[in-house]
Amino acid sequence: MKRIRLIIAYDGAGYAGWQTQPNGTAVQEVLEAELAKLTGARAVLHASGRTDAGVHALAQVAHFDTASRIPPEKFAYALNAGLPGDIRVQYSGLAPEGFHARFDVVKKHYRYHIVNAPHGDAFLRDRALHVHGTLDLPAMRQAARLLLGEHDFAAFKAANSRVKDTRRTLYVSEWRQEGRHLYYDVAGSGFLYNMARILVGTMLRIGLGFDGQESLAAALTGKDRALAGPTAPAKGLTLTRVEYPGFDTADYVEIL
Amino acid sequence: MKRIRLIIAYDGAGYAGWQTQPNGTAVQEVLEAELAKLTGARAVLHASGRTDAGVHALAQVAHFDTASRIPPEKFAYALNAGLPGDIRVQYSGLAPEGFHARFDVVKKHYRYHIVNAPHGDAFLRDRALHVHGTLDLPAMRQAARLLLGEHDFAAFKAANSRVKDTRRTLYVSEWRQEGRHLYYDVAGSGFLYNMARILVGTMLRIGLGFDGQESLAAALTGKDRALAGPTAPAKGLTLTRVEYPGFDTADYVEIL
Repeated sequence: MKRIRLIIAYDGAGYAGWQTQPNGTAVQEVLEAELAKLTGARAVLHASGRTDAGVHALAQVAHFDTASRIPPEKFAYALNAGLPGDIRVQYSGLAPEGFHARFDVVKKHYRYHIVNAPHGDAFLRDRALHVHGTLDLPAMRQAARLLLGEHDFAAFKAANSRVKDTRRTLYVSEWRQEGRHLYYDVAGSGFLYNMARILVGTMLRIGLGFDGQESLAAALTGKDRALAGPTAPAKGLTLTRVEYPGFDTADYVEIL
Repeated sequence: MKRIRLIIAYDGAGYAGWQTQPNGTAVQEVLEAELAKLTGARAVLHASGRTDAGVHALAQVAHFDTASRIPPEKFAYALNAGLPGDIRVQYSGLAPEGFHARFDVVKKHYRYHIVNAPHGDAFLRDRALHVHGTLDLPAMRQAARLLLGEHDFAAFKAANSRVKDTRRTLYVSEWRQEGRHLYYDVAGSGFLYNMARILVGTMLRIGLGFDGQESLAAALTGKDRALAGPTAPAKGLTLTRVEYPGFDTADYVEIL
C-alpha cells in the first residue's frame, strides 16, 4: 500500500459540500467513486477539512491509500478524465510516510469574494456575494486587523458546533479591493465551523454602517455568538491554500 | 416613445446565443419577455450584433423603444429583479435621437481566454478553452501583430457566411499572459461571422507548432477558408466592449 495526496479544485455550486451526506451529492463521494473505478478497490479520501454546501476550493488537500500500480503523479490525469468539469484534480503525488491531510495542517487560507456594485455579476452569481450598498472599507480593514494573532473565537462559531477549544491564531486577515471586487483573505492555524463566514458577516455589518468598530471587539471578548454578525452566504467563500510541513499547495496552484 | 439603451452582461453557457432561434433559449427572448412584463407592451431589442451559442458578453449593447414611464436609468434595476442571474443588465439610459445599437458601432472588442496548464480550471470550464500543450507565445504574438490594420479577412469567415465585403480593420490584436491564463484581446471596426474564433484557431495551430508563422499570412493573402485554422470553441470568447460616437461601454463596465 502507498499513500497518495491530491490537490483538488471544485466549484461548490453543484455539491452538498465536501463530505458525503444523506442528501445531495458530495465532492468526496464523486471522487471516491472515480477512484474505485480507476483502481478497482474502495478507498476513503481524508481531506484537510470539510467545506460546506456551496463553498468552493482552489486547493483542497486529501489523501488515500492504494495498492494500485498507477504512478502517483498520473492519478491527477486519470481522475480528471472521468470526473465532471466542476471538480479538477490539480496535482497528485506520493505522500511521505505517515502524512495525514487533516491532522498535519499547519495553516489554511480562505478568500471571501464580494462584488460591490449596483448590479450583480453574471459570471460570479454562484461564486461571490453581491452587495449593492456603499461599504466603509477603512472600517472593515481596521476590524480585520483586530483579528490578527491568537484569540478565543467562541463568538464566531456556528451555534450547533460543540468544539471545546475555541482559541485559534490568524496570520492573515485583510481586505483587498480591485475595482468593484472586494476580497477578504484570511489564514489561520484552524477555523471553527462557519468561522470565516461569521467573521465576514460581522465585518460587513460594520462596512454597511449597521454596527460600529467596537462590535467586533465586543464579540471577541464577550465570546457569545449573539454578539457577532450573521453568517455570510457560502457561495462567496473559497478554500485557497493549505500548508503542511514541507508541502504547500501554493507551489502547485496559483492564487490570482 | 423614447429609445432606451442597455449594457448587458451574460454567461453564454446556458443560451443558444443572443438571437431568438427556433431551438434553445436565446438571451434576446429572455430579455424581451422581461421587458414585456415590465412595460405591458412588446418591444424588439436591437443588439450591437449577434453572439453565437456559448459566447459570453461583459458588455453587449442593445436598444428598444418604449412608451413606458419607467425612468430610463431604472430599467437596469427593474429588469435585473426578474431576470435569471446569468443575465445582468449593467446600465440603462436614454439613447440620443436616432441612436442604433447595430448601425452606429465604431469598434467592438472581444477577448478569448485560454487556460494553459496540465489540468483544467473547475471554475472556467464554460468560460475558457483548456490547452494542455506548451504554446509558443512569441510566435503567437508575432502572428497577432500581422493582423493589425486593414485586411481582407475572407479566409477568416464561416464557410456559410454570404457577406460580400470582407475587408475589416483591427485596432488591437494581442496576446497577454497572467500565470497560466492567456488572453487574446482583439478590437475591430467589425467582425465577420466566426472571425474572432477562426483567428484564435489559426494562431493556436501556430502556438502548438502545427503550422509556421507564414500560415497566417498565406491565409490573409489567399482569402480561402481552407488556408486558415479551425474555429476555436465558443466558450472561450467574450464580447468585452462596444464603442459608439460619444458612448463607450468601458465607461460603465470595467474589464479586468
